[in-house]
Amino acid sequence: MENNEAPSPVLFFQTLTAYQRSSALKGAIELDLFTAIGDGPATAAELAERCQAAERGVRILCDYLTVLGFLRKDGDRYSLTKDSATFLHRNSPAYAGGAAEFLMSENLMSHFAQVAGAVRKGGTMEAGGGTMAPEHPVWLSFARGMGWMMMPSAHALAELLPLEPSRDVSVLDISASHGIWGLAVAQRYPRAQIVALDWAPVLQVARENAGRMGVADRFRTVEGSAFDVDLGRDHEVVLLPNFLHHFDPPTCVQLLQKVRAALRDSGRVAIVEFVPNADRISPPEAATFSLVMLVSTERGDAYTFAEFAQMLGDAGFAPPEQHPLPPGVSTAIIAGKG
Amino acid sequence: MENNEAPSPVLFFQTLTAYQRSSALKGAIELDLFTAIGDGPATAAELAERCQAAERGVRILCDYLTVLGFLRKDGDRYSLTKDSATFLHRNSPAYAGGAAEFLMSENLMSHFAQVAGAVRKGGTMEAGGGTMAPEHPVWLSFARGMGWMMMPSAHALAELLPLEPSRDVSVLDISASHGIWGLAVAQRYPRAQIVALDWAPVLQVARENAGRMGVADRFRTVEGSAFDVDLGRDHEVVLLPNFLHHFDPPTCVQLLQKVRAALRDSGRVAIVEFVPNADRISPPEAATFSLVMLVSTERGDAYTFAEFAQMLGDAGFAPPEQHPLPPGVSTAIIAGKG
Repeated sequence: MENNEAPSPVLFFQTLTAYQRSSALKGAIELDLFTAIGDGPATAAELAERCQAAERGVRILCDYLTVLGFLRKDGDRYSLTKDSATFLHRNSPAYAGGAAEFLMSENLMSHFAQVAGAVRKGGTMEAGGGTMAPEHPVWLSFARGMGWMMMPSAHALAELLPLEPSRDVSVLDISASHGIWGLAVAQRYPRAQIVALDWAPVLQVARENAGRMGVADRFRTVEGSAFDVDLGRDHEVVLLPNFLHHFDPPTCVQLLQKVRAALRDSGRVAIVEFVPNADRISPPEAATFSLVMLVSTERGDAYTFAEFAQMLGDAGFAPPEQHPLPPGVSTAIIAGKG
Repeated sequence: MENNEAPSPVLFFQTLTAYQRSSALKGAIELDLFTAIGDGPATAAELAERCQAAERGVRILCDYLTVLGFLRKDGDRYSLTKDSATFLHRNSPAYAGGAAEFLMSENLMSHFAQVAGAVRKGGTMEAGGGTMAPEHPVWLSFARGMGWMMMPSAHALAELLPLEPSRDVSVLDISASHGIWGLAVAQRYPRAQIVALDWAPVLQVARENAGRMGVADRFRTVEGSAFDVDLGRDHEVVLLPNFLHHFDPPTCVQLLQKVRAALRDSGRVAIVEFVPNADRISPPEAATFSLVMLVSTERGDAYTFAEFAQMLGDAGFAPPEQHPLPPGVSTAIIAGKG
């Protein structure tokens, strides 16, 4: 960062124009450009025909996506990178193009248009609690778009939860959304019964995913807020994926106490979160997530492992352990009932 | 890019959320956070008081800006990097915070919300020619915000134009905007007379800058479109900074012919542009600029040096030379009348 060279406005310029990268990628997804490129290198003229677009437009967008690292260019022909083929080709089982609808939803982008206001206030400028309002529509696009991208993390989490294979166990998935976290456990453990809890509209997505993953017979749903509904009892595992970051620590402790009461004695809570290091500026994906919570919730944050350990301890849990989940963005924090 | 590891969605995720970086920086500029940090390392609590903001909000934003490289963090205290002190502290002569108003103007952002449509059409979705419409208001925010950031490039360009110091010479600055390109020539050559041509509203900004730079007595203005007004004659230099990229090659040639007719025999045209290499995917700042032109103009583009050489030749100019301008984003292309 610091050196003896003349000061440079390049980072400043790149950052003020970074939104153009998001928009370019979203546009390419809308055009289904990555699917059009498919297996073979293709010219802008060929792609223009497949996408019913102007050759000049396709050429400029493909060059842009090549600079960003989503395509390769050899001569005048474009091809997919491995990552693009995996996540952006519509026929890929890991297709994640739908994530654009959540990550660039009008709602979330409007929050980010008010960063200064949120910093002044110390929380979201949206009336009614931001995205934590009951049945906020943004969660339907989250459930639809974000599930398949989570699959490697969800499979890794399932491996971290050795369950007794010889008896029926109950797994409660709080804020289940797309349901992937619990469904990965159901796939791994044939005698696991999954209870998915969330707002009614998103549970429809989870039910569809349960069918696709072949575990619908061991999947049931509970509609409502985790703070209000009966969580049941004697669960072997309660999953809390990407939920606690929406709340302040006292609220998290209150929910963790309720979760603890719903576990059997040998049970564990498995939290999935963006967990920054104690310096709060690394790793980048986890550290930058705090700002998402600042602008879109009243009191949410990205908490450090020490803060989660404190909350879990305050709620009566045993000291937790943490495990990074692939691809390295999220962390699992697992604690016994204590 | 390609390796044997599992595919990663990290670039995809980073790109879809890149707009959050732009918004965070814009928010910090609106809060005047960089000026509040000033000389000394400061805590979030101290900055919250100076910015009349919530400590929690300031802490989260400062951590975010640290991850991006705009701040340093030691313990719980934040300080400016050299670049931030230069471009984002309001008391710096190179303060460029106003660039956010242009680069993130509602107009430009709305263009980028329609990338797919612009690719289909092969040009801007905005009626009336996009930002090339007469007196489009976006150019006032450009003139106000982008001038001082151009100063190192403008001084470098003035050095590339050895003018006869012993006689009066006329320099025509087409699409002068903030006027910085011509004004830097006036500062360097005490007998240079500058004629700045642009829409009337932005010329007010250029006139103010001429006063600040102490060369108002050798600065006059012509209002209107370069395609319509009389360009005068016997200019020693005609400057064309960041203008030709808005048009297609035949239109550029037409203007270059008109420019050539306004030069004295020893005269030269000096074009400043984002010039990608022949591969059109490097360097990144120049290559990505094509998309800005696609979404905001009908037929504009970022042209290669070979394309500029062709246009200049078609207009009757001698073969051009090119010179990269600091900080490495723009290129000067200079050609004699031939």
